[in-house]
Amino acid sequence: MFEIVDRDGLGRLGRLATRHGSVQTPALLPVINPNNVLIPPREMADRFGAEIVITNAYILRRTKSAGGSVEGDVHNRLAFEGPIMTDSGAFQQHVYGDVDVTNGEIVRYQASIGSDLVTMLDVFSEPSHSRAEASAGVDETLRRAKEAAAIKEEVGPDPFALVGVVQGGVHAPERTRCAQEISKLGVDVAAIGGVVPLMESYRFRDLVQVVIASRQGLSPHLPVHLFGAGHPMLFALACLLGCDLFDSASYAKYARAGRMMFVDGTWRASELEHRICECAACAKRTPAELAGDERAIAEHNLAVSFAEIGRVRQAIKTGDLWELVERRCRAHPALLDGLKELRRHASWLESFEPLSRHSALFYTGSETVYRPILHRLRTRLQERYSPPRRKVLVMFPEGEKPYMARQAAAMEKVERVCNAHFLVKSAFGPVPIELDEMYPISQSLVPDQLDLEVLEASEVFARQFLAGAGYEFGILWEGDATLEELSKWREEPTPIDWILQRVRATADMQFGRGAADALLAGKVDLVRSKNTGRVRNVLVDCRHILSMRAHDGFFSLRAEGGKALHRAFAKPALRVVVDPETAEFNRAGKNVFAKFVLAADANLRPMDEVLVVDPDDALVAVGQCLLGPEEMAAFDRGLAVRVREGLPP
Amino acid sequence: MFEIVDRDGLGRLGRLATRHGSVQTPALLPVINPNNVLIPPREMADRFGAEIVITNAYILRRTKSAGGSVEGDVHNRLAFEGPIMTDSGAFQQHVYGDVDVTNGEIVRYQASIGSDLVTMLDVFSEPSHSRAEASAGVDETLRRAKEAAAIKEEVGPDPFALVGVVQGGVHAPERTRCAQEISKLGVDVAAIGGVVPLMESYRFRDLVQVVIASRQGLSPHLPVHLFGAGHPMLFALACLLGCDLFDSASYAKYARAGRMMFVDGTWRASELEHRICECAACAKRTPAELAGDERAIAEHNLAVSFAEIGRVRQAIKTGDLWELVERRCRAHPALLDGLKELRRHASWLESFEPLSRHSALFYTGSETVYRPILHRLRTRLQERYSPPRRKVLVMFPEGEKPYMARQAAAMEKVERVCNAHFLVKSAFGPVPIELDEMYPISQSLVPDQLDLEVLEASEVFARQFLAGAGYEFGILWEGDATLEELSKWREEPTPIDWILQRVRATADMQFGRGAADALLAGKVDLVRSKNTGRVRNVLVDCRHILSMRAHDGFFSLRAEGGKALHRAFAKPALRVVVDPETAEFNRAGKNVFAKFVLAADANLRPMDEVLVVDPDDALVAVGQCLLGPEEMAAFDRGLAVRVREGLPP
Repeated sequence: MFEIVDRDGLGRLGRLATRHGSVQTPALLPVINPNNVLIPPREMADRFGAEIVITNAYILRRTKSAGGSVEGDVHNRLAFEGPIMTDSGAFQQHVYGDVDVTNGEIVRYQASIGSDLVTMLDVFSEPSHSRAEASAGVDETLRRAKEAAAIKEEVGPDPFALVGVVQGGVHAPERTRCAQEISKLGVDVAAIGGVVPLMESYRFRDLVQVVIASRQGLSPHLPVHLFGAGHPMLFALACLLGCDLFDSASYAKYARAGRMMFVDGTWRASELEHRICECAACAKRTPAELAGDERAIAEHNLAVSFAEIGRVRQAIKTGDLWELVERRCRAHPALLDGLKELRRHASWLESFEPLSRHSALFYTGSETVYRPILHRLRTRLQERYSPPRRKVLVMFPEGEKPYMARQAAAMEKVERVCNAHFLVKSAFGPVPIELDEMYPISQSLVPDQLDLEVLEASEVFARQFLAGAGYEFGILWEGDATLEELSKWREEPTPIDWILQRVRATADMQFGRGAADALLAGKVDLVRSKNTGRVRNVLVDCRHILSMRAHDGFFSLRAEGGKALHRAFAKPALRVVVDPETAEFNRAGKNVFAKFVLAADANLRPMDEVLVVDPDDALVAVGQCLLGPEEMAAFDRGLAVRVREGLPP
Repeated sequence: MFEIVDRDGLGRLGRLATRHGSVQTPALLPVINPNNVLIPPREMADRFGAEIVITNAYILRRTKSAGGSVEGDVHNRLAFEGPIMTDSGAFQQHVYGDVDVTNGEIVRYQASIGSDLVTMLDVFSEPSHSRAEASAGVDETLRRAKEAAAIKEEVGPDPFALVGVVQGGVHAPERTRCAQEISKLGVDVAAIGGVVPLMESYRFRDLVQVVIASRQGLSPHLPVHLFGAGHPMLFALACLLGCDLFDSASYAKYARAGRMMFVDGTWRASELEHRICECAACAKRTPAELAGDERAIAEHNLAVSFAEIGRVRQAIKTGDLWELVERRCRAHPALLDGLKELRRHASWLESFEPLSRHSALFYTGSETVYRPILHRLRTRLQERYSPPRRKVLVMFPEGEKPYMARQAAAMEKVERVCNAHFLVKSAFGPVPIELDEMYPISQSLVPDQLDLEVLEASEVFARQFLAGAGYEFGILWEGDATLEELSKWREEPTPIDWILQRVRATADMQFGRGAADALLAGKVDLVRSKNTGRVRNVLVDCRHILSMRAHDGFFSLRAEGGKALHRAFAKPALRVVVDPETAEFNRAGKNVFAKFVLAADANLRPMDEVLVVDPDDALVAVGQCLLGPEEMAAFDRGLAVRVREGLPP
């Protein structure tokens, strides 16, 4: 019932199907209080773009409708034809004491009123709970989740969608365990619960840890709801961590208290002397008029919240969600702590990072250098890159891009004297000069003045790299040394073909160490752009094996190249294994759907070039995967691999 | 014709009087193209809050009105009764070549059509101009400014306001010279010109340097217009540097190109797939509808621009303009370079910094520690603070606030063994523990995880401080050492009265070294809050000399305290010298208006407690100054000192 339409790392644009229509994600679900409908759901849809709302089944069950009944379809009671999610009252039970309803009762009640997304009654764990308390809560939550799943089975065909809840307090292993177990039951949506106390006390670093621990246990095919996260300053960060759904009672609660929500914080309307917002509610009123108007403030809060959801969606589409998050997290030092926590998870986050993006990478502060895509760059340099054997290594400082073109004169000067290789000690780590057009090196912008932290990190990265890179160099030279210094390394010139070196290095970085040797075994012809001189196509023994993409400097794989990689790399490397029954379609050039993917190399990344094989490891096609390996295996909907060339049997 | 209503550093809320009414600043002046009125000025006022517009006199002069004439009142021609500024065509002359009009002609023309703000025809300096070229341009610009001022004199009573232009290219000394000379002529507004090429090429670091160099030469009583700065991503930064007026042709030019302006950058409307804005124009349309609608995009651009002006105004009011600027400058690495440039000017910026603010200081990144108010903290610690004489200095790491309350147990443990003083090595620099409630120490929030840059800077600040502080300490101890280590410094306990020490240290930090000795000479009684235990009033020999403010930990000065400071500190220290003819009103407790200020101590800062004296240095009152010393002397309007107590003769 959920499919990924587009993605930026863990952040995803999705489509969630319900019995009352489908919902774009990330989505914000305004909370409708059936006792006090401030803004009717229909109006929320028309004016703010709400596609789905949420209401509380526990309150509904105690509240007679106009017809005097607590029964009847929830869509009629809320006068809304779109999807409706219902909550179980677990939070109320936790905050206000015993709620006189069982899990079975409230799940059945939600089913009876036609809720589209039915939430189980989970056990709320406080951040103060010990591991043992949290663990007991998880056990009971899982027992109830099973019970709820069984009730869903009873309903038969076209049942409601079941929302399972991940609890576990601030104990990461409990969160992960709960998430893993929930993923095995018949739930359709995973909700991360028990986080309101963390948000209320601005413990955003703990929030990040909790969301990551939960997400690490969840199957990627489940849409993730972050319970109670109704403040727009959190949406971007939460989406970056893979959350898809948010509920907001805040728009109304804040309005009742005269408080206006913004992406960079909260203002008491009565404190404002100037109009600080462009929304329709603010544009029509003076700040003083606004301060006394609960409904207008609620409209403001909704307008800001839905616009932020739109910005997050657009950022996922554009590929600059990290930039948005890094900006948003400057709103409060506690959010900055949340952002800084991400670097500790760079390795895990990297596994969801696409090969490249269409938008440039912007440096926004010292946190940027720890982004997962830069972590990958440094890791692959150590694991996949082999420098050419030269006596001298010349290091250039960070500078204008593309590096090779800018440093051409300096390189030529050195190469007249001795045989050298060239590295740029960039803000993001050491960059062999022949990789300067590979994403995100050329496609990034850094300020002229770098943070000390970044300079030191760059130094550390360079040292780590040099220690493992196996250079036989004698000296490091930072660009301004005299030729006398270099001349002691004078030797017979054996010039490097930098264009070929770029092709070789890129192939190894993209596909793995050894890919260049495998792909380029034979007579290599490089077809270059007449305008830019950049490599466009790579032919080996007159066969077109690779095309180099202008926008990111990576290769598109052709069938002939795929054959070479398939011979050189043992399974499961680079492979997506598909159902043998559908393989013939892929051989004919048809795309691979996630439903038919049996397995995929765990080292693949979204947007990677892949080998599509059948279970016998026969190569059936080459193409580009749109999902990560875990996702390809887990999803039943959506495209997994866009096939470029099929290989007829 | 300009007065300051409120301020945050160089940023100011002002009121600019014109013949067609007064204008709140910071203000945005939408450019009206008389040949192509996309949105009529009247509508801009009603819908977006525009109070003033700008149009181009050079174009008006070539464009016949509906009546077939180029003469007639500009207010009629634009159908706008509010203030109208006219531009001279200098930019057109520069971009499109020779404009066939002289400075005298265009100034007289603007006067003839009833323009409220008449702009001289300056000579546009390109960033590529050499110092000599820029200097020649400045000479000619100044000659024309004198000519324009003479024309203004001819007009007689109730003349137009004259806009003088600061040129000088990227050469700071030329900018400053031009600004100084312009300030001496009869101009009413200073415009910083020649900056569009810097903005177009994202040279924001150069822009910051140019604005600062210009502002350093300008008299503070002149409102400052930044020519061509129409992108909302720049407003906050420009206001922080003392700009008050902006013109925007961008709202229309961008709209024509299908481009939408946001505070964090620019989007091509056609590239948007999601609704990313809350403004009325965006709320009513799908992104696709918007993309084809130039007028709607222009409305969007205006809504966003005016809302940002409102946010800047509110930030000045609230005292968090620095936080806003630090957030805004994350939108692009080139803006971050502009922000990072500010630390080089911390010492100059500090002279405009108020003593304290009402809002807490938020750490947003490594740039924060270089804010002028923190520069002041470190400077005053070196210049004004005298630590108590103790053998041992104990250093605590950054931690929870207020430091003294949090470290009470650790302090007590140490004090049982030896006589020690205590410092916190905070993110912002070393903090003697008795100053922990002084703004912004307790009134600041930093993340738990500090940037390496900040940690290193903190170390450097601490070392600088310790080198000059004259401690007779033997060891530094970071909080966890054993008592054995301390016991070698064991001596007869001479406990510090930390409450009195707080009063002494605060007095010296606030008024200057020696203030504590001067103020506390006699029998000291401290009146403390029953609830918090914090000092409220300081009495010496039964006379109330100081009150300590809860919100910022600084003192309010009473008349008796003023007398003591007046005796101890020779003029001009702490003094505001007023006209003898109005001094009697101040003696009676009336406030001091800027018009009657003759001079003020250059070391005073906005919100400082001051001694109001007559030219014979007789003390007439004590109070709080609302302006800086240069401003008090330069302004003819507005309040300079809020008198707390007058001293009857």
